[in-house]
Amino acid sequence: MAELPIATVTRLIRKSGAERVSEDAGVALSEELEARADEIVKKAINLSKHAKRKTVKREDIEAAINEF
Amino acid sequence: MAELPIATVTRLIRKSGAERVSEDAGVALSEELEARADEIVKKAINLSKHAKRKTVKREDIEAAINEF
Repeated sequence: MAELPIATVTRLIRKSGAERVSEDAGVALSEELEARADEIVKKAINLSKHAKRKTVKREDIEAAINEF
Repeated sequence: MAELPIATVTRLIRKSGAERVSEDAGVALSEELEARADEIVKKAINLSKHAKRKTVKREDIEAAINEF
């Protein structure tokens, strides 16, 4: 947890159009994004193993997002 | 785009168990996470407006994730 810096995520929230952002809103979004990242990456790792690679590549991430 | 630092996202990928990660895998995941963040935040902003607030709070983010 808290791998994604709150300040960075808060900036993302502003960039999407929020006038003001509470700090814990940044925390909540950061946690959710990390959970979604973990889910995508777990699939991508399985896909890279399936392709007999040890390196997770863009194509694994993209397939994890789009096809599974 | 590229608001989430690639190095940070690459670290997330490692944390989820990847042995090796290509740089463009980090780019791909970063772009996807930003797109998902934007979608959540747009909903959260509407929810904050609905509650007649100018500040996006944790409850808006959580409702955007869980209820809409």
